[in-house]
Amino acid sequence: MNILVINCGSSSLKYQLINMESKQALAVGLAERIGIDGALTQKVEGREKYVASPVMKNHDDAMKIVLEALIDKEHGVIKSMDEIGAVGHRVVHGGERYSNSVLIDDDVMKYLNECVKLAPLHNPPNIIGIKACKQFMPNTPMVAVFDTAFHQTMPEKAFLYGIPYELYQKDHIRRYGFHGTSHKYVSKIAAECMHKNIKDLKIITCHLGNGGSVSAIKNGKSVDTSMGFTPLEGIIMGTRSGNLDPAIVTYLIEELGYTAEEVNELLNKKSGILGLSGISSDFRDIRAAAAEGNHQAQLSLDVYYYSIKKYIGAYFAIMGGLDCLVFTAGIGENAYETREGICEGLECLGIKIDLVKDKVRGVLAEVSADDSKVKIFAIPTNEELMIAEETLEILSK
Amino acid sequence: MNILVINCGSSSLKYQLINMESKQALAVGLAERIGIDGALTQKVEGREKYVASPVMKNHDDAMKIVLEALIDKEHGVIKSMDEIGAVGHRVVHGGERYSNSVLIDDDVMKYLNECVKLAPLHNPPNIIGIKACKQFMPNTPMVAVFDTAFHQTMPEKAFLYGIPYELYQKDHIRRYGFHGTSHKYVSKIAAECMHKNIKDLKIITCHLGNGGSVSAIKNGKSVDTSMGFTPLEGIIMGTRSGNLDPAIVTYLIEELGYTAEEVNELLNKKSGILGLSGISSDFRDIRAAAAEGNHQAQLSLDVYYYSIKKYIGAYFAIMGGLDCLVFTAGIGENAYETREGICEGLECLGIKIDLVKDKVRGVLAEVSADDSKVKIFAIPTNEELMIAEETLEILSK
Repeated sequence: MNILVINCGSSSLKYQLINMESKQALAVGLAERIGIDGALTQKVEGREKYVASPVMKNHDDAMKIVLEALIDKEHGVIKSMDEIGAVGHRVVHGGERYSNSVLIDDDVMKYLNECVKLAPLHNPPNIIGIKACKQFMPNTPMVAVFDTAFHQTMPEKAFLYGIPYELYQKDHIRRYGFHGTSHKYVSKIAAECMHKNIKDLKIITCHLGNGGSVSAIKNGKSVDTSMGFTPLEGIIMGTRSGNLDPAIVTYLIEELGYTAEEVNELLNKKSGILGLSGISSDFRDIRAAAAEGNHQAQLSLDVYYYSIKKYIGAYFAIMGGLDCLVFTAGIGENAYETREGICEGLECLGIKIDLVKDKVRGVLAEVSADDSKVKIFAIPTNEELMIAEETLEILSK
Repeated sequence: MNILVINCGSSSLKYQLINMESKQALAVGLAERIGIDGALTQKVEGREKYVASPVMKNHDDAMKIVLEALIDKEHGVIKSMDEIGAVGHRVVHGGERYSNSVLIDDDVMKYLNECVKLAPLHNPPNIIGIKACKQFMPNTPMVAVFDTAFHQTMPEKAFLYGIPYELYQKDHIRRYGFHGTSHKYVSKIAAECMHKNIKDLKIITCHLGNGGSVSAIKNGKSVDTSMGFTPLEGIIMGTRSGNLDPAIVTYLIEELGYTAEEVNELLNKKSGILGLSGISSDFRDIRAAAAEGNHQAQLSLDVYYYSIKKYIGAYFAIMGGLDCLVFTAGIGENAYETREGICEGLECLGIKIDLVKDKVRGVLAEVSADDSKVKIFAIPTNEELMIAEETLEILSK
């Protein structure tokens, strides 16, 4: 069976058509600049990249163009839409109801709309994407795979904040966590690499991209994660602040004259590595500047490593030890400099990286020293494959 | 020499007159309800408590009454003010300038006023107290001892937030940390108990009162602490939230209609153990309710222990190990239930509490199991003695 995986943003639509027998992507594409001028890119193994500039007034247009590209005689990979057995949609926020993926029906759609308040930037385009897809494939089963679902196993003590309980009960303010699909995927792969049952393992997964989060996975279940009510909390990120004294937010408003909206903009778009370094949110730029002696660039790297080290220590403590540490996503799977910066000094936790083995980028590799108590892995994440597998699993139920 | 220690709040003035040869407090007193109706309590070892209701229109009145009580023929402990060799003032915020206590002069007073913006609730009464004291003892040397000073040794990576660097440089938004006098005092005592030089030790100190903070002290220096720009950040406390996703603050404002001022009130006065339990900020009430099966009460204890465990793990990681764990302040030195709740499950860090030895309240005790790699202590804090010692040290320079 082929499964189409859709990840729909406010002006973009990422997709992959995955063959579930081979686990290979037949086509990988991106429709972008939706509502602006429209651009389509589609990659198929062994062929030149297909690039087009179709008009895309809205997500319906984009969806139509994506499906046409997939069945196109020259550039496509399937003959008709009948060869798409199911669609898996990435949905950011599943609230408290979904601790697993779910077959989409009217009731699910209604709940996703209720979650918009919790994820105002992300859920609306996800919903639009599902609607557009349904229009062209009304009889194809569709599954929603949530970024938050994997973390729904967190115990209350990990997901509650120290605020009045009514704010949780009535207004649903709690830690949700994100990147769940990725944390789940790489922890599964890590257990396979160790030839161990994931139910016997204590794993910390570091999903480090432009956004980033660290998760504690005990016996196969997420027991804590660094992102919280929103993807702003946790480690410092490319442009996001991560953890702050909450009083800084009110200080910015009351003493420095920011509006709440401006604070959101500041903390989400102008902070993190970009804000501290004053240079860029791209780690390659930062490392280059640091190598030339730029103090703020070096400092932003130091703060980044430090914020992740603290999570590793915290999660080691609350799980009662650690078997395996995983690095994934853009920075985690590619930048050995980052892996080394994070692991440095963590021998006290049994974490010892092998500086020779670690010199790899973008491949699955065990990078721990032979005498490291904790196994360390770099694992390329594959959220699309995970979404397709979850979709297949839901259909088989 | 006798040193008078003053801790001046908005409507109260706590004081101790300490004899520096014996290190004993000759008198311990409290002037309260300043500007309301006025009440004075003074305790002297071996005598009945002296209670009076003098008129105290302002802090000048209060200061005058305190000095009169100290030299009072019947209730006092000294014959004249000449027997007060120096005054040590507790000052909450010393900004970035003071990494140590300082002899108060006009320049210091000017800087303390500049710090008011950073500690609007605390520094103004501290300043008023110094002024009142100077009026009656113009020739007595006075020293300011700061809550923030001990933490000024933190490296940049520990005190910087992931926000634009200009907000640190220009607006001084950074981690300062508080309870410094207490963390310094108990870490010193712990090293003495271990017969070790503090410069060779890695210590985590948990100051757990109605407010609370955890510090990482490496080689005698504070390298990190849980309170930040203000005393709101960190572990959850009696009525304070501790760490939150910063986006919760803007969510409360934008979606739930709070003003910034109301958020401050909520997070400082109605959150923490009080907010989560819905019962009280007093741990004795909470434990009683939890024992009767109240879910929210048990939950608030679980969240409390959990938030401290995470700091212990984080600081273990960034110090590269741990020699000694200290509990102090109202809850930390008295509630063995809390010490046990926190240490439970931390054997992975070499922390093993002795459940028999630990059954003590309010006394200095080593409470670790014989085979615990990390020594664990309950140490009653004595910020007043520490302030007096710092004052003496500054005068001796």
